Amino acid sequence: SMSSVNKTVHPFDKARLDVLLNRRFFYAPAFEIYGGVAGLYDYGPPGSSLQANIIAEWRKHFIVEEHMLELDTTIMTPAPVFETSGHVARFADWMVKDTKTGDVLRADHLVGGVLEARLAGDKEARGLAAQPPKEDEKKKKKKVKSVVVQLPDEKVKEYEVILAQLDNYSGPELGELCREHDIRNPDTDNDVSEPQQFNLMFASSIGPTGQHPGFLRPETAQGHFLNFSRLLEFNNGRVPFASAQIGRSFRNEISPRAGLLRVREFTMAEIEHFVDPADKRHERFHEVRDVVLSLLDRHVQTGGSTKVTAMTIGDAVDKGIVANETLGYFIARIYQFLTKIGINPARLRFRQHMANEMAHYATDCWDAEIENSTGWTECVGCADRAAYDLSVHSAKTGHPLVVRQALKEPIVTEKEVAELNKKLVGKTFGRDSALLQKIVAEMDEAQLLKLKGEVAQGSAIVSAEGKEFKLTPELITIERKTLKQSIREFTPNVIEPSFGLGRILYTLLEHSFWSREQDVERGVLSLPPVVAPTKVLIVPLSAREEFDPLVKEVSSKLRRAGIFSRVDDSNTSIGKRYARNDELGTPFGVTLDFASVQNRTMTLRERDTTGQLIGSIDEVIAVVTELVQGGLDWAEACRRLPAYDGIQAVD
Amino acid sequence: SMSSVNKTVHPFDKARLDVLLNRRFFYAPAFEIYGGVAGLYDYGPPGSSLQANIIAEWRKHFIVEEHMLELDTTIMTPAPVFETSGHVARFADWMVKDTKTGDVLRADHLVGGVLEARLAGDKEARGLAAQPPKEDEKKKKKKVKSVVVQLPDEKVKEYEVILAQLDNYSGPELGELCREHDIRNPDTDNDVSEPQQFNLMFASSIGPTGQHPGFLRPETAQGHFLNFSRLLEFNNGRVPFASAQIGRSFRNEISPRAGLLRVREFTMAEIEHFVDPADKRHERFHEVRDVVLSLLDRHVQTGGSTKVTAMTIGDAVDKGIVANETLGYFIARIYQFLTKIGINPARLRFRQHMANEMAHYATDCWDAEIENSTGWTECVGCADRAAYDLSVHSAKTGHPLVVRQALKEPIVTEKEVAELNKKLVGKTFGRDSALLQKIVAEMDEAQLLKLKGEVAQGSAIVSAEGKEFKLTPELITIERKTLKQSIREFTPNVIEPSFGLGRILYTLLEHSFWSREQDVERGVLSLPPVVAPTKVLIVPLSAREEFDPLVKEVSSKLRRAGIFSRVDDSNTSIGKRYARNDELGTPFGVTLDFASVQNRTMTLRERDTTGQLIGSIDEVIAVVTELVQGGLDWAEACRRLPAYDGIQAVD
Repeated sequence: SMSSVNKTVHPFDKARLDVLLNRRFFYAPAFEIYGGVAGLYDYGPPGSSLQANIIAEWRKHFIVEEHMLELDTTIMTPAPVFETSGHVARFADWMVKDTKTGDVLRADHLVGGVLEARLAGDKEARGLAAQPPKEDEKKKKKKVKSVVVQLPDEKVKEYEVILAQLDNYSGPELGELCREHDIRNPDTDNDVSEPQQFNLMFASSIGPTGQHPGFLRPETAQGHFLNFSRLLEFNNGRVPFASAQIGRSFRNEISPRAGLLRVREFTMAEIEHFVDPADKRHERFHEVRDVVLSLLDRHVQTGGSTKVTAMTIGDAVDKGIVANETLGYFIARIYQFLTKIGINPARLRFRQHMANEMAHYATDCWDAEIENSTGWTECVGCADRAAYDLSVHSAKTGHPLVVRQALKEPIVTEKEVAELNKKLVGKTFGRDSALLQKIVAEMDEAQLLKLKGEVAQGSAIVSAEGKEFKLTPELITIERKTLKQSIREFTPNVIEPSFGLGRILYTLLEHSFWSREQDVERGVLSLPPVVAPTKVLIVPLSAREEFDPLVKEVSSKLRRAGIFSRVDDSNTSIGKRYARNDELGTPFGVTLDFASVQNRTMTLRERDTTGQLIGSIDEVIAVVTELVQGGLDWAEACRRLPAYDGIQAVD
Repeated sequence: SMSSVNKTVHPFDKARLDVLLNRRFFYAPAFEIYGGVAGLYDYGPPGSSLQANIIAEWRKHFIVEEHMLELDTTIMTPAPVFETSGHVARFADWMVKDTKTGDVLRADHLVGGVLEARLAGDKEARGLAAQPPKEDEKKKKKKVKSVVVQLPDEKVKEYEVILAQLDNYSGPELGELCREHDIRNPDTDNDVSEPQQFNLMFASSIGPTGQHPGFLRPETAQGHFLNFSRLLEFNNGRVPFASAQIGRSFRNEISPRAGLLRVREFTMAEIEHFVDPADKRHERFHEVRDVVLSLLDRHVQTGGSTKVTAMTIGDAVDKGIVANETLGYFIARIYQFLTKIGINPARLRFRQHMANEMAHYATDCWDAEIENSTGWTECVGCADRAAYDLSVHSAKTGHPLVVRQALKEPIVTEKEVAELNKKLVGKTFGRDSALLQKIVAEMDEAQLLKLKGEVAQGSAIVSAEGKEFKLTPELITIERKTLKQSIREFTPNVIEPSFGLGRILYTLLEHSFWSREQDVERGVLSLPPVVAPTKVLIVPLSAREEFDPLVKEVSSKLRRAGIFSRVDDSNTSIGKRYARNDELGTPFGVTLDFASVQNRTMTLRERDTTGQLIGSIDEVIAVVTELVQGGLDWAEACRRLPAYDGIQAVD
């Protein structure tokens, strides 16, 4: 049974996993034979299938289940769009250059790396244990070698304060820190330049004249916002609704180093849920209310702690820790999705952004962070972008991006309305008429009532900018009027769950990897069937022709059942073929041998336990179909079919 | 029944289709609220679903069915890759500029458009019918208004010759034609500049220093070639095998104008089938041998005709019209795929490229061309790229991109092998030893035999570059030796089926569109269930709460059966809701009304015939599931369930 498999007897070994992923071509550096380019990776057959299966499950879990409106918008984007969205001005990092070699470094990573190395050297000089590595992947920087030198106590304190608020410094402040603390390029010991801002979008130009600058999108979101009116119309004018898009985005990272966790080109899956700002309830919230999550809110972090609290999402919303039902609903649905595809729930937390780390468009944000060998990594962001994007695009283009809602009960209001006799006013006050109009237009209810009373008694004086106007009943009429508003117009708010699929894929590989107890070299990827690249391996005992009809039969029956299988008729032992497929994460294998030819029996092997069952070909196909579809677990399968002891009757 | 529906009573009206596609948000110009950008389009919900379904079917038809190795490689590509592949030098069009306005025009389109307009004006002046429009979409250019002027007979002839070989002219020749024939910008009547080459790749740069120029890929193919060694290893070192990739590519077209048929960013699906150049048979060719295709080979075209020949692919390969089984196999499989998703086979032909129009890497190419309102459009290319790409990348990088095949029977050869006594040679000839070595190394079998005889008789003289060497048995030994070659090494050839999914999607929409006989305003898209965005529309009679449990039941039962449905509970008549879904191509609809609540019955409507059947909810779900999965047609469904006459018993 499953419980007899010890998956943790060997400690996790990232180097071993990397070798496996490379050897089995899950992914590899792009343009490898040209020397590669940092931050660009190609997915090979198992990586592509794993990604395609994660996407298919994502589509089912979100788009189909929630009837979202799918979009496919362009990557190439004219510059004005990102000027409006704020990305041209603010989607940037600060970089410095080595003054002699010209090497480029991210300024915050440089300062952080050097000061941390000095603190580590100090600790060692004081005979203290080395500090555990910082846990936030975002702050990961090139490891700087520490030198064992004790620092004055006040220096230690000063460095710790700087490190705690590293995300808070502006570029010039980072430059000042470099000068003040003699921070140089640790690779060369050379001085570095003043920090310069470097925009993370890849630039290009559209059309043959070079006059239309464009950028590759750094997120798919703008494509949703620009199509808002069409989407709203498609949804019969009603909110809430969500659009969804899966596609490639680009960020020209200054010096990517962390494998699939920080890349320059990546596949995202983004949802933009458009909701009435006055009503952020969610009609399906009751379905997820009892989901228990590990939450790390901003108050706990500001208090200097990273201790998570286990809590139902219902409680979190009730207590105001998570702002509203819609945000809470998506956080719970993200949790369900990630754990369904195989992320270890014990290594998954939701961390709220602190005020200073939020993207320029967000008003609140919770990240799904997944723990892996590099620390806690943001894999899904769940941001409340409020009305930011729709408002700025609408203001820039003049195209209204609003919902117009017929009010069930028109709102009836009464108020004082002033009307000037324009002809007479012009005759009386000439050029100053415009000023008078402005004064009257800006009057509130109380001022109008007062003026009305005075005019009714003959005349009134109003004044501004040193000018005086005497108003009589001939010049102005002030009356109480009834106003009826039957349409409510508002800019919807946007809740945005945004998935980095490469990061999810990589952390899933880490969570799935272990080595067999008896042999650390025999790696296994325990990917759940729902995402495993191949579901069933078909293994004919040998490449002899008499197996061909059976292989074809099994293969086509599995295909008809919707199960993706592969045949391995390579010229090696069955054990080696299974070992190869353990590395590929293939959950089940069926073996065809001479007994199959004679008796139409087939054996069924489970990857994690390596347990084997036997049955007729059709029985085994029925059982493995249910196993793959999730309707049956291995323990149950063991009750349905007899165990295979390795000996079959052959006449 | 289907046969009673007349889909051609109204002639095809492109303007009407465009309005439908825009209104239902199949696709729309990207950045529309910013004024749009030529050649960039966003797909809305039905367009995205249609595309996703086409891709899913493509994956099943090619990748799963043929066990192809899927890849997902990066779009951003460092410049050296495209320098090697030839794209930096040759993936370009010639453009001219209006000398006053700076407007940019494609040189060949300008010359072609102006001369065709003059010929049309001449025809009209001679009182002849206007020429039918040219049928090749690739040569489509902006329509130039013709002026009724008769031309001298020799001018007509001259223009016709130019037009027939328009694809053959170099840039300077196009410039010469403009001067010689006074060709100016028809929009402004201004002169145009000398043609300049414009590379169609979007350029960018990678990393913060600007030192690493990159391009957005114009095809996904290079990503396959660069990973060839890894793919080969994944396939246990054996050919043939195919890799496949679905992804975005970019071409910075000079002035795109033809909607989805010529765009700057597009989704491709590409297969690279690696095959032994000495054996291009295909093991599954017999499965497609009898598929009948419309073929238009290069000889027919060179002879000035575009008359297709209907022929089985088996005959075409046997007669050498299609070069080999592998190319033929893919051509037939492309045909099967396109007709399965709904392309009209009568409007599908395979046209062989003429020598002068082939891409720089291709040695043979057949296009699947689909007829639509703009003419015949290339939608799939099926090229034999031979060993071009693997050879150039291997030569550039020094990384061998070859197959090493163990020979079953080693090739045994005998030949004369000469060996110099190096020590003695050095002592005897000093500095001239190297020259002697060169002379001997370059000798062929006959020369060696002659030398062997002479040396055996005492000594021989060889000479070169004015130097003479006297060779004795002490200085040289020549012996007959047996050599055994057990490995064969070769660069595989590549057969490349390359699909432009946007073009296929658009032509499919044209082939699917018609208007109801009784009302031309009532458009229908007869998309086959396999690709239709929504398979089943669920229509509750009204939004009353009593329908909710039934709607949920039907919706979840269909979901469990794997059928994608949508609920339309909008506040309009059932007729309007069905009409909307006819425009969206939804093949089936089920209606829940008061009888459903009372009797658990449901009606089932078919889109094309508008025929309706009735049955219990579970019966209807079973029937519609089979209809969607293709196991049942509507005629058969009509035998399974009674017709619905619009009246249901309600107590």
